[in-house]
Parts: sequence; C-alpha cells; structure tokens
Amino acid sequence: MQALTLHAGCLAFQADWPAPTPGPDEALIRVTLAGVCSTDLEMVKGYVAGFSGVLGHEFVGVVERTGAAETAEWIGRRVVGSINIGCRRCRVCLGEGPEHCPNRTTLGIHNRDGVFADLVTLPVVNLLPVPQSVADEAAVFTEPLAAALRIREQIKLRPTDRIAVVGPGRLGLLVAQVLALGAGDVVVLGRRPESLALPARLGLRTGLVDEQPDDSADLVVEATGNDAGFAHSLRIVRPQGTLVLKSTFHGNADVNLTKLVVGEIAVRGSRCGPFAPALRLLEASVGGDTAARLGVQVRPLIDAEYLLRDGLRAFDHAARPGARKVLLRPT
Amino acid sequence: MQALTLHAGCLAFQADWPAPTPGPDEALIRVTLAGVCSTDLEMVKGYVAGFSGVLGHEFVGVVERTGAAETAEWIGRRVVGSINIGCRRCRVCLGEGPEHCPNRTTLGIHNRDGVFADLVTLPVVNLLPVPQSVADEAAVFTEPLAAALRIREQIKLRPTDRIAVVGPGRLGLLVAQVLALGAGDVVVLGRRPESLALPARLGLRTGLVDEQPDDSADLVVEATGNDAGFAHSLRIVRPQGTLVLKSTFHGNADVNLTKLVVGEIAVRGSRCGPFAPALRLLEASVGGDTAARLGVQVRPLIDAEYLLRDGLRAFDHAARPGARKVLLRPT
Ligand SMILES: [Zn+2]
Ligand SMILES: [Zn+2]
Ligand SMILES: [Zn+2]
Ligand SMILES: [Zn+2]
Repeated sequence: MQALTLHAGCLAFQADWPAPTPGPDEALIRVTLAGVCSTDLEMVKGYVAGFSGVLGHEFVGVVERTGAAETAEWIGRRVVGSINIGCRRCRVCLGEGPEHCPNRTTLGIHNRDGVFADLVTLPVVNLLPVPQSVADEAAVFTEPLAAALRIREQIKLRPTDRIAVVGPGRLGLLVAQVLALGAGDVVVLGRRPESLALPARLGLRTGLVDEQPDDSADLVVEATGNDAGFAHSLRIVRPQGTLVLKSTFHGNADVNLTKLVVGEIAVRGSRCGPFAPALRLLEASVGGDTAARLGVQVRPLIDAEYLLRDGLRAFDHAARPGARKVLLRPT
Repeated sequence: MQALTLHAGCLAFQADWPAPTPGPDEALIRVTLAGVCSTDLEMVKGYVAGFSGVLGHEFVGVVERTGAAETAEWIGRRVVGSINIGCRRCRVCLGEGPEHCPNRTTLGIHNRDGVFADLVTLPVVNLLPVPQSVADEAAVFTEPLAAALRIREQIKLRPTDRIAVVGPGRLGLLVAQVLALGAGDVVVLGRRPESLALPARLGLRTGLVDEQPDDSADLVVEATGNDAGFAHSLRIVRPQGTLVLKSTFHGNADVNLTKLVVGEIAVRGSRCGPFAPALRLLEASVGGDTAARLGVQVRPLIDAEYLLRDGLRAFDHAARPGARKVLLRPT
C-alpha cells in the first residue's frame, strides 16, 4: 500500500509499504481522507524523538474488515476513530480512559502507525460511525474539533466571560468557534491583519494581538505554540483568570512566572477531546445557521487537498505561515 | 523612629526616619515583631523595580492610636494585619476583595511603607486581633500561614491525593503542614539531606527531590522559586495533576511546556491567603498534638531574632542557603 512515513526524522512517500493486519479486537480501515495538523509538522521537525512509522492521526475512512467475527457489523461503515489506545488494565484506563494511560500508544504519534496510508488498523472500541449527513470533508475534522471541545470539558465558562483565542490558525479557529457556541464573547487575535480575514468571514470578532490590552480577558487560549504567543497570552489574561495551552510547544519556553504567581493565574494544558459530541456538533452544523453561532464551520478552513503520493508537497504547504488545513487523499 | 528602608536597590537602617500619621480610616501600630520572607530578599535583589520606602509585611504589633474616634476601641489591642489595601471602589474590591485590586497598595511591597520600623499604619479593616494564647513568636507567622492556607482555598484536595512539596524552606514547611492537616499524604522534597532534618522533626515525610519518581504526585507545590525546583515539580506531577506555584520567581523561567500540554497539567499561581483561619489555626495549635497533624508548628521554623538596628545582618542571615525564618524586633 501507499504510506507517508517518518524515519530518523525524514518524511518519505512509500509506494509499496506492507499493509497492516488487524488484531482480534481491531478493524482494518481504508482511509478516505486525512488531515495534516501542527503535531505532524512538529514531529517532522523532531518534536517527538524516536517515532518511526506511518504518520497521521486525523482521518475518516471505511471499515474493510475486522479481526473477529463478533465485530463484523462494522464492515462497510464509514468511521472516524479516537487516537489513544490504552492498555485497558491500568488504573488510568479503568478510571478515566486511555488518554493518559502510561502504556498507551497514539495513532501516528507514539508507537503506532498512523493514517497517512491506504489502510490503518484501530481497536473497534476506538471507532465511531459517521452520520450520513456529515461529508468526508467535515468528518475529517472530528479529531481536532474534539480537541477544541476538550476545553469545554476542562473549564467552566460563564456567560459573562471575556474570551481571547491567540492564534488564528487551523486549531485556533476551531477553538474559537467552539467557545463562541451559546453566544460566548470571543475574540480571535492574530499578528497580521491578513490572518484575521478568515475568522472575520466565519463571523468571529477579531483583533491584533499587539493591540489587545493587558489583563483584558477572563480566559485566554494559546493556540500558536510559540514563545511570543505564550507571552502575549499571559499578558492578556486577567489576574485570577485562566490560560489554556492548546498547542504543543517545540522545546522549552521562556516564561515570566511572576505574573502567574502574583496574578494567581490558572494555566491548563489541554490535549485530546471527546469524539461523540464532536460528531454531533458536525451533524448539527450541516445546513445550520452557523453565522448565528449555532454550529461550527469547518470546510472554510480547508486550504488544499493533495494526493497521498504528493504528501511531501502537502507538508510544505501546511508548514507555510498562515496555512490552515491541508488534506491528504490516498486515491 | 527606626526603619529598614530600600532605596534605589539599597537596603539601609535609618535611625531617624519620620514616623507615619494614620489617616481617618487607619490605625497607627507599634510593631512588636516582624518576619523576613523571601519576597523581601527578592526585593533587595531588585525583583520589584521601583519600590522605595520601608520594607516588610509580616508582623505583629499593638495599636497605638487610630485616625478616627469611632475606631478608638482598637487602641491597645494586639493585632496582625492583611497586607493588600484596595481602592474599595473597583469591581474587584467590591466583588472579591483587595488582593487583586488593580489600584492596590501592598504593605512593604508596593507603594506603601512596611513593618520593618517602630511604627506602621494600616486601614483598620485590615486588622485582626490576636487571641491571647497565641504568642508574638507564633502570631508573626500569620501572614505566611495565610499564604499557605490559600492553596486550600484554591485546590480541592481528596483524601487519596499524593502531595509533594518541593522546597523545605520557610514557606514550604508551612505549606506542607497545612496540606497535611486532616491526614493528607504529604512528602517534603529537598536537594540535600541536611535540609530534611527539620521537616522530619516536624513529623513530615521527607525525600530527596532527585530520587522522587516521575509522575508520582497528584499535587505538587513548588516552593523554591528557582528553575530547578520548577523543572522537578513539573517532572513529578502526574498527568492531569496540579502544580501550584507558591514562590515568586526572579525573572523568567525556562519551562518545558510540552509535558504541561500533553499531560494536561493544571498550573496554579498562589499568593495571599485568609488571615482569620490562619489565626484560628495558630490558636488551635497551642499545646495541641501537632505531631498527630492536628495543628501546625511554627516556632521550630525560627532561625534567629535580630534587633531592627541589626537588620542588614538579619537579611544576610535570611539569605543563607537553608535559612528559615529570621525575625526582627524593633526594641
Ligand atoms: Zn492533530
Ligand atoms: Zn492503561
Ligand atoms: Zn512574605
Ligand atoms: Zn479596587
């Protein structure tokens, strides 16, 4: 099969990579469409040392076969899949789920081949059927949309909260839309006016991050993954406010901890989120009045689509400043 | 009067400093005993640029007179006083109190003369009478004990939580005792075995920070204020655990934000706390069975007492590695 692999830090297209075989609890899925995210780019830059194999974790596909007869009803279903695979034995797995299992593998990120390929395997428990009305081009956003929804699991929002999302990129725009649901007061902040055109088109309030006053937001979501974005986020959050870190950072950050202590800021890391409500939200948004913030718009975030065999060009595209979602289609 | 002042970064003893006059809402207090804390040391190192005046914020004293006849009942009372003075007009003051008022002054820290002097003024609303059974040598710990109690206002502890306090210094040992109240599972972590003798004597479990396993604590309190302490704290806290920053940091810290994001760690700055429960706790601890963790021991934390006129030597003492509480007595 075709695959886009990472080995010793080198991204390569493989025309003839061995296809995986599903274990007894797994399904073999034919990938229809996959998405490139910043984590993939960071991995190519060496962010996760030691990963070797097929990249990619955002996908929609169709179950081709399963490893056991009892799960045969999944065959032919269009699915998305959550990306953490726990040991199902430890205290974490049995308590809260696989997301923080110390023995976990993570699809295309940690010890498990990913979705930038014709075929991928995942445990059947990780799969969710995609509602018929949700197109592949929307369903492929399920994973990052779930990650955005994770913030709403972690932080109690009040209707009066002033919310700022720093970073109008592919993840920031999902986060901002999710936080605006239910009439939240959200502003998307960017460094350059050009970067604010799309959020404005999505009906989001926008501003230049340099011009945002100190201590002006109750909740700030950092979605740039760089030092400058972090410094602005900490500057903008009010004393006793909350700062959510949504982007993985490359290496260490230079952080002014004094404001954090004196202002009694709450900082919260945020990673993977719940798939089922993400799918419900995509379904509810089909044809809905998204301008009135009753749903989310994901398709305007698509910058380009490439064939899998042009994956290296797709990565170059995704790494350009200001690029949003780049999709990969195996065939 | 005598005073220990900071001007242009220079600490000086002044034998003949002008005594303050209380405003209509204030009391004039004769300082009996004052404590040197790490914030004072950091200020001398230049941590709060621009402070000029009398240093010091931890004290016990006796009200000498008040600025208005209606508050005359305070005269002669032994008191401690909370250190933030808000504008009493802004949304923060009217909502939560003066601790985060943007217009606040802070005793001996920000735009207000402090307690390393014969006399100091404070608004009467900031004062609390000291119970008779609480000696001056205990009452002088009210402010840092309140700061330790602040963590229990901010973080919900579960009886099963594994708690680590990094830094067996003057603040860390108050924090550890406060977190151990009610049979909390607390370990105090230090860099050198010598630093663990006192916490062991206080009945606290101890360990070397280097030997503490990764991801082994549900709650970690950083009480060193240095980069190495922060790095260890982040290493020790488990995924989805909580890291409380209790010490002010000098300058910026080099922080590995990846663990914070991937582990979805909650980081919480923590500063000033409630005085009334701190006084109740000091009162309840008098003659109590503190070894059974039904109270706190503060007097073993006293390293030395100096006369105010020997304040520079007192500061040198307080700045020595491993030094705990150094007290200043005006006369
Ligand atoms: Zn991703
Ligand atoms: Zn597990
Ligand atoms: Zn202090
Ligand atoms: Zn105020």
